[in-house]
Amino acid sequence: MAPTKKGVLERLNAGEVVIGDGGFVFALEKRGYVKAGPWTPEAAATHPESVRQLHREFLRAGANVMQTFTFYASDDKLVNRGQKLAFTGQQINEAACDLAKEVANEGDALVAGGICQTPSYLSCKSESEVKAIFKKQVDVFVKKNVDFLIAEYFEHVEEAEWAVQVLKATGKPVAACLCIGPEGDLNSVSPGDCAVRLVKAGAQIVGVNCHFDPMTCVEAVRLMKEGVERAGLKAHYMCQPLAFHTPDCNRQGFIDLPEFPFGLEPRILTRWDMHKYAREAYKVGIRFIGGCCGFEPYHIRAVAEELAAERGILPPASEKHDLWGKGLEMHTKPWVRARSRRDYWETLKPASGRPDCPSMSHPEGWGVTKGHADLIQHAEATSAQEIQHLLQMQKKAKSSA
Amino acid sequence: MAPTKKGVLERLNAGEVVIGDGGFVFALEKRGYVKAGPWTPEAAATHPESVRQLHREFLRAGANVMQTFTFYASDDKLVNRGQKLAFTGQQINEAACDLAKEVANEGDALVAGGICQTPSYLSCKSESEVKAIFKKQVDVFVKKNVDFLIAEYFEHVEEAEWAVQVLKATGKPVAACLCIGPEGDLNSVSPGDCAVRLVKAGAQIVGVNCHFDPMTCVEAVRLMKEGVERAGLKAHYMCQPLAFHTPDCNRQGFIDLPEFPFGLEPRILTRWDMHKYAREAYKVGIRFIGGCCGFEPYHIRAVAEELAAERGILPPASEKHDLWGKGLEMHTKPWVRARSRRDYWETLKPASGRPDCPSMSHPEGWGVTKGHADLIQHAEATSAQEIQHLLQMQKKAKSSA
Amino acid sequence: MAPTKKGVLERLNAGEVVIGDGGFVFALEKRGYVKAGPWTPEAAATHPESVRQLHREFLRAGANVMQTFTFYASDDKLVNRGQKLAFTGQQINEAACDLAKEVANEGDALVAGGICQTPSYLSCKSESEVKAIFKKQVDVFVKKNVDFLIAEYFEHVEEAEWAVQVLKATGKPVAACLCIGPEGDLNSVSPGDCAVRLVKAGAQIVGVNCHFDPMTCVEAVRLMKEGVERAGLKAHYMCQPLAFHTPDCNRQGFIDLPEFPFGLEPRILTRWDMHKYAREAYKVGIRFIGGCCGFEPYHIRAVAEELAAERGILPPASEKHDLWGKGLEMHTKPWVRARSRRDYWETLKPASGRPDCPSMSHPEGWGVTKGHADLIQHAEATSAQEIQHLLQMQKKAKSSA
Amino acid sequence: MAPTKKGVLERLNAGEVVIGDGGFVFALEKRGYVKAGPWTPEAAATHPESVRQLHREFLRAGANVMQTFTFYASDDKLVNRGQKLAFTGQQINEAACDLAKEVANEGDALVAGGICQTPSYLSCKSESEVKAIFKKQVDVFVKKNVDFLIAEYFEHVEEAEWAVQVLKATGKPVAACLCIGPEGDLNSVSPGDCAVRLVKAGAQIVGVNCHFDPMTCVEAVRLMKEGVERAGLKAHYMCQPLAFHTPDCNRQGFIDLPEFPFGLEPRILTRWDMHKYAREAYKVGIRFIGGCCGFEPYHIRAVAEELAAERGILPPASEKHDLWGKGLEMHTKPWVRARSRRDYWETLKPASGRPDCPSMSHPEGWGVTKGHADLIQHAEATSAQEIQHLLQMQKKAKSSA
Repeated sequence: MAPTKKGVLERLNAGEVVIGDGGFVFALEKRGYVKAGPWTPEAAATHPESVRQLHREFLRAGANVMQTFTFYASDDKLVNRGQKLAFTGQQINEAACDLAKEVANEGDALVAGGICQTPSYLSCKSESEVKAIFKKQVDVFVKKNVDFLIAEYFEHVEEAEWAVQVLKATGKPVAACLCIGPEGDLNSVSPGDCAVRLVKAGAQIVGVNCHFDPMTCVEAVRLMKEGVERAGLKAHYMCQPLAFHTPDCNRQGFIDLPEFPFGLEPRILTRWDMHKYAREAYKVGIRFIGGCCGFEPYHIRAVAEELAAERGILPPASEKHDLWGKGLEMHTKPWVRARSRRDYWETLKPASGRPDCPSMSHPEGWGVTKGHADLIQHAEATSAQEIQHLLQMQKKAKSSA
Repeated sequence: MAPTKKGVLERLNAGEVVIGDGGFVFALEKRGYVKAGPWTPEAAATHPESVRQLHREFLRAGANVMQTFTFYASDDKLVNRGQKLAFTGQQINEAACDLAKEVANEGDALVAGGICQTPSYLSCKSESEVKAIFKKQVDVFVKKNVDFLIAEYFEHVEEAEWAVQVLKATGKPVAACLCIGPEGDLNSVSPGDCAVRLVKAGAQIVGVNCHFDPMTCVEAVRLMKEGVERAGLKAHYMCQPLAFHTPDCNRQGFIDLPEFPFGLEPRILTRWDMHKYAREAYKVGIRFIGGCCGFEPYHIRAVAEELAAERGILPPASEKHDLWGKGLEMHTKPWVRARSRRDYWETLKPASGRPDCPSMSHPEGWGVTKGHADLIQHAEATSAQEIQHLLQMQKKAKSSA
Repeated sequence: MAPTKKGVLERLNAGEVVIGDGGFVFALEKRGYVKAGPWTPEAAATHPESVRQLHREFLRAGANVMQTFTFYASDDKLVNRGQKLAFTGQQINEAACDLAKEVANEGDALVAGGICQTPSYLSCKSESEVKAIFKKQVDVFVKKNVDFLIAEYFEHVEEAEWAVQVLKATGKPVAACLCIGPEGDLNSVSPGDCAVRLVKAGAQIVGVNCHFDPMTCVEAVRLMKEGVERAGLKAHYMCQPLAFHTPDCNRQGFIDLPEFPFGLEPRILTRWDMHKYAREAYKVGIRFIGGCCGFEPYHIRAVAEELAAERGILPPASEKHDLWGKGLEMHTKPWVRARSRRDYWETLKPASGRPDCPSMSHPEGWGVTKGHADLIQHAEATSAQEIQHLLQMQKKAKSSA
Repeated sequence: MAPTKKGVLERLNAGEVVIGDGGFVFALEKRGYVKAGPWTPEAAATHPESVRQLHREFLRAGANVMQTFTFYASDDKLVNRGQKLAFTGQQINEAACDLAKEVANEGDALVAGGICQTPSYLSCKSESEVKAIFKKQVDVFVKKNVDFLIAEYFEHVEEAEWAVQVLKATGKPVAACLCIGPEGDLNSVSPGDCAVRLVKAGAQIVGVNCHFDPMTCVEAVRLMKEGVERAGLKAHYMCQPLAFHTPDCNRQGFIDLPEFPFGLEPRILTRWDMHKYAREAYKVGIRFIGGCCGFEPYHIRAVAEELAAERGILPPASEKHDLWGKGLEMHTKPWVRARSRRDYWETLKPASGRPDCPSMSHPEGWGVTKGHADLIQHAEATSAQEIQHLLQMQKKAKSSA
């Protein structure tokens, strides 16, 4: 069946909307299969049923793309800080490809092989060393013949360029996403300049993923688009943001929020927030619209429902929803039936039920970047002494804020 | 393997903690398999893999009980307000039993057949009619030989008594939960009096589920326990609350909140809130501790982790967590590694990132109860005229508030 | 002019609304004439122009009562904890009477001599000792021939009874207010029982002042009224609450809030909140309606404006307001002119502009009451050692909360 | 005594800090002497005791400048929209000068004659017409021999230039403040460019007042200073911000907030917020530091207390305060005594006690500026028809937001 599918560039060139999937590491952390901290995807090999089921849910929600669950599946990352895994990087990457392909073929979805930033880069390894790391994963993607490739979650545009160059060599379509907001990458390269560099490196689709809430990400992609057009270049645009509200973030995104990663619940977007995201992304000219950390299947469904007219189709899971809460017409309580309408949900300001909590947080702003001693990778577990050192750093960072 | 398992009463009599599972209808709504409104569990028959996977996740999170996914699977409910299903009530109940049993046997879990309140009761049907509705589901549970039975989610203690009587006739252990808070049932019967009536009707385990946040539910069960002890009776106690903060609820619980059911995200409890819940429930003398709507696998895991010392065991999914966020020691960013400790998470006040939203809502208080015209069941879909009538009712209720 | 004025009881017996004034110690603290901590009223002697001006503003706002600025002007309080004043208690009380009378005679207002709770009572002095303290202030009030007397701000009904007995002996009308909420006094005597005891001691007007927000105080007075009527007694009712929102207070009122006394700004009621207060107080049957700490002249004006129809008169200061913001019709900006209407202000939910702050606080709950070592009065200034001891107490109180 | 006083420029040239006073129109509105809407200062003539008292309180709080209460006392403004006053503009301006001088001479304060923007400018009158309006007020200031002049509260730098030119002609020192934030004036002229134009027009002191909270205003003045220095010019800098938190404001400032002017209470700054403001202003190089709307005497006192070391003096009113709440050592309740220290108040996050209210608002953004029909002045009162028209405009503005 796969050969008859339209490729990602054909779809985008034809003006179609391509719906991405949601974030696997956060969803599977909540389901019990990913550890927050290393965030590695060994569950593809150890618990394939959990990964397969999540793929299916996103497919059912309307996703046209099954990203292989290969985030942080680079060999250098898998051994970080005392982690010992029963599977090799190659085995994990292969298992992930098989699962993505199996489910993609249950519908009209494409398989995208994904790579992301590496501890090697943060530890100041050379370009060729970093590229060799990427190459190992890409070899699997080529062997498994995925439909296209995504380089995503890069904080430094330089590393993303290297990744795009490696991906480009395969001949497959290449998408590239930085995890930046409107302020630019960690070296203050603006979104527009980042995008131009990624396009010049060979990416046909550019955008951002993770680190910021949908509206912030859409604005960053809009700036990318402006930059590309100003440079007289051409590209397609994609956006895969967080499903968390982050109005209080600094340049480093939600990693710096005090709630990351175990206290983010009150920030989770509602499905109605997702309608606004999908509409805004569409307006700005983004046509590859998906999600990252925090996106559950119902969030992707909301994106697909908002763009149902443009796409000419509702996702399968809408049989269990009906647009704008119309399914509530079947609720027992009459006041809940009275909510089965768009204007109710569109204007609701949801309370947090947390009157002892503030609305905004102060992100940590340690200001350490690539090359700083505390960022260098090592294979041993974190020691108690190291933690003491970090607590002192934190105190210093807070008092100077 | 099943015959060798210790029964629920043996466990409770021995002073063990029994961990319940979380809420299926809300979790599967977000995954795309349940429709908010009817909230019926036909996915047991139509998409068994989704239900099986959720059972597995709760088992992995530490649950000792697999509740059959048979909520609202009574024949009168399945046909409500225009719903047409491809499976009969019997088929759905049977499929749900098979799935629960299959997964329970992958670990040390018991299967509990569950029934809940009926539209027949709200529509003022007779005791024998209502009992006949319950009997149909119970017949399946007996045939499938579940381990014990739970009557749950009753707003009126009278209907719960009827349910307990039907369950009791099977000879299996019976648990009974009302969906009430400290104010008592919809007819203002106090938690203490409710509990006494349920025990006298034959329940060996009594408690509350759904409708209120954990601390409110624990308080309601504490009042039940006081009542039972004051009456010179004996029982075991259970609690399966919401995973949503509801400080602003009235007697009817979260159904009355304006955010129900599609805007509850900012109210979701963190895993650390669940530690407090588990500890408080344990202190009060509750030994069957689980969850209801909003509980995801990681919430149940947090309950199991808090009570690891008492239970002498950590749940399987803790391999992907480590207590109190210790897994963060493997995080790349040093300031996140600095959060791998209990006192950080225990005292965090999470921001909502929603500065335009209030902290609390005003629940709707229509004051309609059993027998009111707007509560009577009918098989036809809700008409536009009915919705207009409801919007007028709502306006009236708001202006008199 | 004074002899022709109708007395307070004649007015209340005739069913008239009597508007009280607002809180002097808080208003004059902000103006620079009262020290937070001792809260004593020596400004009556040292800066009479500041006190006279505040009286005038309340008169202009519609107040029918000028309370002498004699709060905490008992001889035992004036020497507390190292305070040294240039004027005697008698001089301060006399100066305060003269100022109140001077301004009262500029309009139709009555002069009320006020006393309040004493450090002597908290230090377990005898009934006769405490009464002797009250007597000294009352002697001044008699000499200056005030119109009636108010015993207010008592946390223990027993001390208030003693005060009423001393006041009653003068033959002048007596009003008595506790600073309690619906939970009752510090010894858990209910509002109803407190009110009965005050009426039996001789008070013709009973109620509450200070410590809680308006709606909470109105509820406490409602319970007082219920108690008095249940006991077959008769009284008039008064209410002089805070102008701060205190939904999070425990029995001890706003003193326990972490914001007391220098961080209460975000809790200040708007004038529109005061309209609701005045209406609710009136509905409940309270006819002496005023304010305490936090009430500025415009708050009293709002009370008078809400009850303009019932009183048949608008206050003088309304010439600079117009009802419900109608004065905004003269504003330059058109969108502000569009706000010159009742429904705009009545439904506004004012934002705090403080997204880093929570909505509610946790009051301190040290649980120390009359007789506790830390409450005993002494004349020396607080030592550094004492403060250290208190910080330790606080830490203990917090960790056990 | 006045002749021996050091002038404002001498003080600033010597590096001294000059403390300004607070906002009269808001303070006197709450005291019952100013009408919100026209905001005109006729109380100087009708109720001089109220104005004199407020001057005294600011003097006592540490202010070195008594601004004449002549805001909006231009002849064109006094007759706006149906207002009829018993005093002429000249009488009001003269009375205001007398009051300011009387109180200034009770201490070491200077008198500053103040003018502000005019409806004539908004109604597109010519430069000479607008200047003639200014001239009338200035003639009074010259006759009354004030110490220096302030042009303040200008939304358009062009009108401020005209004002400075008129003031400059008197030969007295001239200060000029726009009511702008970091985004610049209503025509998008940047703060830096505005400041350069004001200095070139003849102002020796430039800065901003009103419209934004202290930190925002300090940032705007910082940008002004940068501009002036970049242009190779010299000036002194002043800042007189709101005492309201306005993180949610757009370019037009707090006038656009839905809470303006009758629901701003929860936004009021604490005295501790003022300490931060004073310190930050000082750091940036601002030496004329005062306040505008919302500033009460205790706010100015806090500014003076923060800069006590730099100024070598505490204000008189600090006798009733003691630094950082040390006066609380005399409080009866031990837990309040435990708050008599800097670190308690410096880190407090005050709750609003308003759990049903959001943290931030959406300002109205009508986008009407100088010359728009709805901004043109007229003498008749606003009609019901006009209000209807405005409500429709508002609806349109909201739906397009």
